[in-house]
Order: sequence, then C-alpha cells, then structure tokens
Amino acid sequence: MPDFTVTLAWDEAKQGRLAAEANPPLPVATPPVFGGPSGVWSAEDLFVGSVAGCLMSTFLYFAERLDVPLAAYTSRATGRMEKTRDGLRFTSMDVTIEATAADEAARRRAADLRFKEKLEAYCPVSTALACPVRITLNLYAGTGPAAE
Amino acid sequence: MPDFTVTLAWDEAKQGRLAAEANPPLPVATPPVFGGPSGVWSAEDLFVGSVAGCLMSTFLYFAERLDVPLAAYTSRATGRMEKTRDGLRFTSMDVTIEATAADEAARRRAADLRFKEKLEAYCPVSTALACPVRITLNLYAGTGPAAE
Repeated sequence: MPDFTVTLAWDEAKQGRLAAEANPPLPVATPPVFGGPSGVWSAEDLFVGSVAGCLMSTFLYFAERLDVPLAAYTSRATGRMEKTRDGLRFTSMDVTIEATAADEAARRRAADLRFKEKLEAYCPVSTALACPVRITLNLYAGTGPAAE
Repeated sequence: MPDFTVTLAWDEAKQGRLAAEANPPLPVATPPVFGGPSGVWSAEDLFVGSVAGCLMSTFLYFAERLDVPLAAYTSRATGRMEKTRDGLRFTSMDVTIEATAADEAARRRAADLRFKEKLEAYCPVSTALACPVRITLNLYAGTGPAAE
C-alpha cells in the first residue's frame, strides 16, 4: 500500500508552499480568523476539503464498481472548531452530498446498495478522524438539484 | 470559534474542484495509485498536507508569541496507508520539521520552551486524527540545513 508524502516550505509571514510529486505547488497559510491572509487555502480548509475529496473518490469507486452511472455530484463539508480546555479542537465534521444518478434505476441501486454506509466504512480520510464525521447523502435521478 | 466550510463539485472521471470563500478553486482527484490522474492533488495528499500546514501555523503562532525569530522552516510529512480487515486505513503520520531560528539564543529558547510538545498539544488538525502523529523537530540556529 502507498505512502503519501508532502513537503512544505515556509515563505514569509504566515504562509508557505506545499509540494507533492508532480502536483502544482500549493500555497497554504494560517486562516484569516487567526491573522493569516485571505484568498489562500488554510490547513483547516484543506483538512475539511480532504474529507470531502476522499468521500467523492470513494463514491466514484463504488459507482464504477457497482454500475451506478453518475450524472452529477456536489458536496458541502463543514468542520466545526471549538475552544476546549485542551485548546482549539475540531469537534465534528458534517458532509452533505447531493449525488445525481443517471436515471431512477441507478438511483435506487445506489440506495439499495447502501452507498452512505459504504462511504462511512471505507473512506480512508474520514475514517482517520478522531471526531465524528456525519454524512448526509441525498440521491437524485436524472435531473435532481445536483445536475443543474 | 470558526467553522470551516468547503464545497466540492465533481467535474469528470475521477476529478472535481474544491472551493472555499475567496480561495482559488482547487482541483482534487483520486490519486494515481487508485486510477486517478497524475499532477493533481488527491484528498490523501491534501490530508497529509493539512497536517504539515497546521503544524507550521502552530509553530509560527508560538514563535511570534514567545519571541523566537525564525530564519527558515521546512517539513516533510508522510501518511502511511495500510490495508486492514476494515479496508484501507491511514495507520500513522510522520512529520519531520527543520526549523532554523535566527540565532543560537532563539534556537535554545525554542528548545527550552518545548516547542515540539506545544505542537503535539495544540495543532488543531493533528490532534483531530485517530492515528498516531509522530513529530520530529530539528532546531537549528542561523545557518542550519533548513536555511539553505
């Protein structure tokens, strides 16, 4: 199984650059709420985004493997940060997915095959979190909201 | 305390785009090892990068607050993924940091103030992981390796 390696170099103030193999360099900075610049991905943003992205990859994997043709897929993920007696902590992550299957038969198939439970069980990133990850999966057929 | 919200839209094949407020859109895809394209950040890369980035922000926070002027900072983070009976899992994360303080007095100050322990205790992303995060912090003064 693969390792995933990323390097980071600090540039100035509260900003640096992430690098990984052939990927384009990715600026990363302290979020604006903690004094960093706006318009730059923060580690916190990337953390939440990695959960969203891994759930998409996991969904696409099962869609291909279980023959559920997809017309559209969007999601919205929110990580909640709270001040605890131990310091700032992510205390929960909520991800709402709008997935539109190609037709009603495919939609029903995704529901019957328990795609939501598959995501909860097999997404490598969200299963690596210590805080609860709550997934809401809304499945549509053909021309659901996610297809617009 | 802030929430961090990211949206994701699937584009085609195994690739989509992450968005968050004023940040530039960030393509994300299944990693090459699982059939995705090369040269695109994967969720797994971003996950590992978010740990590296948050440790940097945490370091910079304490450096500013505790008066440790910094000359250079780089890090290398590796997330290990393993096949378990429950599926693919991140089983550990290793982060090696090379931090160069402006001078020997600042270097000693960072060591005496236990910066490594502060990172372990207060980085919101790495404390949100269920797997062990092992941090190695190498501190240099003035012209250490990280300053090259």
